[in-house]
Amino acid sequence: MTFLTDFGTQDPFVGIMKGVVLGICPDAALVDLCHEVPPHDIVGGSFLLHTAVGAFPAGTIHVAVVDPGVGGERRPILAEIDGQVFVGPDNGVLSYPLAAAGRCAVRRLSVEAFWRHPVSTSFHGRDVFAPVAGHLAAGVSPDCFGPPLADPVRLEIPQPRVDTAGRVQGEVVWVDRFGNCLTNIPRDLVPDTTTERGGPLHVWVGGRPLGRLVGTFSEVGAGEAGALVGSAAYLELFCNRGNLARDRQVRIGDPVCLRRSQKPSSRRRTPV
Amino acid sequence: MTFLTDFGTQDPFVGIMKGVVLGICPDAALVDLCHEVPPHDIVGGSFLLHTAVGAFPAGTIHVAVVDPGVGGERRPILAEIDGQVFVGPDNGVLSYPLAAAGRCAVRRLSVEAFWRHPVSTSFHGRDVFAPVAGHLAAGVSPDCFGPPLADPVRLEIPQPRVDTAGRVQGEVVWVDRFGNCLTNIPRDLVPDTTTERGGPLHVWVGGRPLGRLVGTFSEVGAGEAGALVGSAAYLELFCNRGNLARDRQVRIGDPVCLRRSQKPSSRRRTPV
Amino acid sequence: MTFLTDFGTQDPFVGIMKGVVLGICPDAALVDLCHEVPPHDIVGGSFLLHTAVGAFPAGTIHVAVVDPGVGGERRPILAEIDGQVFVGPDNGVLSYPLAAAGRCAVRRLSVEAFWRHPVSTSFHGRDVFAPVAGHLAAGVSPDCFGPPLADPVRLEIPQPRVDTAGRVQGEVVWVDRFGNCLTNIPRDLVPDTTTERGGPLHVWVGGRPLGRLVGTFSEVGAGEAGALVGSAAYLELFCNRGNLARDRQVRIGDPVCLRRSQKPSSRRRTPV
Repeated sequence: MTFLTDFGTQDPFVGIMKGVVLGICPDAALVDLCHEVPPHDIVGGSFLLHTAVGAFPAGTIHVAVVDPGVGGERRPILAEIDGQVFVGPDNGVLSYPLAAAGRCAVRRLSVEAFWRHPVSTSFHGRDVFAPVAGHLAAGVSPDCFGPPLADPVRLEIPQPRVDTAGRVQGEVVWVDRFGNCLTNIPRDLVPDTTTERGGPLHVWVGGRPLGRLVGTFSEVGAGEAGALVGSAAYLELFCNRGNLARDRQVRIGDPVCLRRSQKPSSRRRTPV
Repeated sequence: MTFLTDFGTQDPFVGIMKGVVLGICPDAALVDLCHEVPPHDIVGGSFLLHTAVGAFPAGTIHVAVVDPGVGGERRPILAEIDGQVFVGPDNGVLSYPLAAAGRCAVRRLSVEAFWRHPVSTSFHGRDVFAPVAGHLAAGVSPDCFGPPLADPVRLEIPQPRVDTAGRVQGEVVWVDRFGNCLTNIPRDLVPDTTTERGGPLHVWVGGRPLGRLVGTFSEVGAGEAGALVGSAAYLELFCNRGNLARDRQVRIGDPVCLRRSQKPSSRRRTPV
Repeated sequence: MTFLTDFGTQDPFVGIMKGVVLGICPDAALVDLCHEVPPHDIVGGSFLLHTAVGAFPAGTIHVAVVDPGVGGERRPILAEIDGQVFVGPDNGVLSYPLAAAGRCAVRRLSVEAFWRHPVSTSFHGRDVFAPVAGHLAAGVSPDCFGPPLADPVRLEIPQPRVDTAGRVQGEVVWVDRFGNCLTNIPRDLVPDTTTERGGPLHVWVGGRPLGRLVGTFSEVGAGEAGALVGSAAYLELFCNRGNLARDRQVRIGDPVCLRRSQKPSSRRRTPV
């Protein structure tokens, strides 16, 4: 079972959720995915969840709680996606996994017998999602927790595109601990330079030239920038042994362009 | 078994304690409560521990190490409180759990055969508390670790009160990751507005009006402040989708007043 | 199984490695040692690893990933050291454990059948080290993963020395969360003041007098500095209930001198 939240680690919120799970299923294996999602950043949390779940075995339960509307109208849900089970608020935190899903079935959590009572209005992670996850881990079937739900919230995910000139257009969607900038351009849209003709590929970010597409960090010199298909299977911008985001002021939302010639065609021009 | 410390996460101290536990009881389930207690903040750590333990099943062992006096005169102790077992220094870190206890029995840890040797003077978490917790998890009875102790250290906990005018007076005792401000006013002292008469309840903090008592964050507009009975069962001050502590400079120790009329009666007046 | 990395906790990298391990060995006990190693600080990570492994039982598997050269020429390795097994890049991250080793056998990881495919060029923690650790935990023998390797990378570790005047000369090698400064002067080089004659021992750091050698933090007054043999079995400089590194600007690399008289003989003089 994994946990992804925006709870941080200065408070015992995550430990509290685990206590509830262990009270129901004492031998559950508990793994922290990430608790430093920026507070209330539903889309960012959804992207991180998406990059992580592929490393987990079938049957894994993922508890995802980025929940600024806790206690309000939003529904609690459970989603079976490609052999794994997700539990969280229906506010779009599952947007990325749902968008990438092959088979998928979503349910509204409504059977309150599986919840912790009294249910607080401000911590459904403890009172709804953790106990449901605990019962799932203990073997309760997903269809016991509530009825099917046809229209889970799907937030708008920035979509990459290939323009008429063959340039791949996308944007920065996450900056990691090392300052590497993950884009929304998936591996499928990155030409394989080892087999295709037409010369080296270059990347622009924020309208400025960044560097060329390579296979590993060390193909560019220390302190130099470049791009590669990262471990999450998306185009990733980096500075070898440096921090790209900090050193070159690259931010989430900055447009990214991948093309063969030297001239960019970004959606937004930044004067140099 | 849970761990609460002021060790932070930049050093391997917490992992080291877990290594000692697993060497004694290889199948212990280990949960981090919080390691970001401000260094040496015994009372703060005690409050966080208190808000968390109710989520754990009977028999849980809690290791609490906020221990500025390590190596000095303070005694190591074990406390059985309402079916759970606490291990830590006798410096007041158990003050909140002891104050809330129904049944409780405290022992001094004196049987050095259960410790790790040589015992360092600066890391009893590794050499005393972790091995004792490991032996507890492996089934050793609490009464094997040392003799009863009648007078564990209890630090002064700020007490809420209801004044002669019926106003509830307390203070801020913790600020969480989201900037929500937890007070020492328990649910029992908060009138139930759904059943009692007399109009809406209002909250002041630091002598300034904050907002009204509501049931959920979303009952006030985005960016507006209010108060509710939080998940820890204490009155909690918040700013919906904002950060109350940062935006309005609310701090631990600020007086809080809950009352029906618009006029505050705080212990300390802050000129606006 | 333990994990030590420079991945931080704002991304799900560590959780992803654990997912891979659990997919291979579902009942592995997983412990975080430290993920806040400064990015790319191989020597610092190696020292932390060294201070931690002694607390773990025989047979423990340690995954150490501080890997700025990932995807380049550096080899992945496995090292059996004194009954424990280490997995990581061959870039010197095992320098301290190797230097302290009694028995030790190193192998190059070459049998790709134990890896996760496709192997990314930027996250061998997920694709090489985690799956190898998972198979080790599941019982695969170390000699199945690749051939012996005679020359693992050993980075230069700063060595303490006793000069002709009997003064012990070393340096600060780590600053912990509390501002305590760990040196590279091991317990063996610190005279036992309880049995040896010659008067109290004094410590200088950066050419400035710091304080005397004591047995516990509380032997000096609050706010005063001193030194003791810390829990890692190295000489450690501290300020009782304060933060030595911050308050007195002590930094990694600062020379440390331990001697009987009041006059220092440091390698570097800092004008006061």
